[in-house]
Amino acid sequence: MKIPKAVQALTESFEKLPGIGPKTAQRLTFYLLHVPQYELDKFAQSLQNLKTGTIICSNCFTVGETDPCEICSDPERDQGVICVVEEPLDVLALEKSGKYKGVYHVLHGRIDPLNNIGPDEIYIKQLLDRVKGEGSVTEIILATNPTMEGEATAMYIDKQLKASASAKAPADKQNLPAGRQGEKLKVTRIGRGLPIGADLEYADEITLQRAMEGRIEI
Amino acid sequence: MKIPKAVQALTESFEKLPGIGPKTAQRLTFYLLHVPQYELDKFAQSLQNLKTGTIICSNCFTVGETDPCEICSDPERDQGVICVVEEPLDVLALEKSGKYKGVYHVLHGRIDPLNNIGPDEIYIKQLLDRVKGEGSVTEIILATNPTMEGEATAMYIDKQLKASASAKAPADKQNLPAGRQGEKLKVTRIGRGLPIGADLEYADEITLQRAMEGRIEI
Repeated sequence: MKIPKAVQALTESFEKLPGIGPKTAQRLTFYLLHVPQYELDKFAQSLQNLKTGTIICSNCFTVGETDPCEICSDPERDQGVICVVEEPLDVLALEKSGKYKGVYHVLHGRIDPLNNIGPDEIYIKQLLDRVKGEGSVTEIILATNPTMEGEATAMYIDKQLKASASAKAPADKQNLPAGRQGEKLKVTRIGRGLPIGADLEYADEITLQRAMEGRIEI
Repeated sequence: MKIPKAVQALTESFEKLPGIGPKTAQRLTFYLLHVPQYELDKFAQSLQNLKTGTIICSNCFTVGETDPCEICSDPERDQGVICVVEEPLDVLALEKSGKYKGVYHVLHGRIDPLNNIGPDEIYIKQLLDRVKGEGSVTEIILATNPTMEGEATAMYIDKQLKASASAKAPADKQNLPAGRQGEKLKVTRIGRGLPIGADLEYADEITLQRAMEGRIEI
């Protein structure tokens, strides 16, 4: 029996999504056959409007409804502290924690040579330009994921920031300001260690090693 | 930070799909932000065309492009053997095996009291009418899933078929023809036991019990 063309087409669209294999794609399509037409139309409308209804902020590259985005244009937030993340979803996650009062810079990826993603494929140059341009940046928090690729990306950015700082102040031997004149630009990495709710017994060696290194006085 | 409305709307549509939670829905939506607009339009088009491009066969209730469907209108297939399955996907799975030459009847569900699905919510009555009406049915293969609900559905259909057979031939004490006059209507259940590639050691008790019961001489 041939699979109807309409079913085949939708199955193929689902299959292209990350983490959705052929079986799941088929299951989702057949599920939608039982859904009323107006729900399908609503779903279709949302898909078509996704990109037209959102704007990438030209300052921090997060996904928002305005440019500059809500966070970049908020006078209450410290424009001198930039948290660098891989994806717009990371901004949402950090915002939910409610503790951070600085701004963001979204790379839209990570350096990942195995998948042919080099430093030029993500917004690293824009970050360096932003730090140089604004001139009032005091801290860069590298909050890329604690994976191999995330660590490599953080290291690369750290190196670039320091190189551009010393290029700006060649007379000075120290790693001096890429940002605020005469002040040292702090580059930090988000803390690593045991997540809340974890079990010491089941933690991997590197996490435990990092937790020991990152211990603080209580 | 507020999530853009366009992102929120698509996330909600994804969340309504079975097996997709809020995190996955968000991940899929943000993935689609990187996809070109024409791909999104194609996806949207497929969604809108899903139901208009398919027809439910009025004979066997499978999903096809014509009514009656390809299988029901195929003169090569034995219209006297009906395989009863829960979903259109089961038809595809059985067709892939390539061994079955009869026709199908799709129930579009299973009797599932916990989810408020009784015998009237699925196409059981239509099956009984079809068996009575065609008058040349020799075998009904109950191929509902070997789950609690699938077994209950199979048992219910078996009972109904036998009841309607004895109602048709009240003088006869045997369970006689709902179908072919004077001939016994065979009602069978698909074989159960160990699937190919399984490991005896890890099989559950009921599967092993069924495998012993269903043993055949080699």
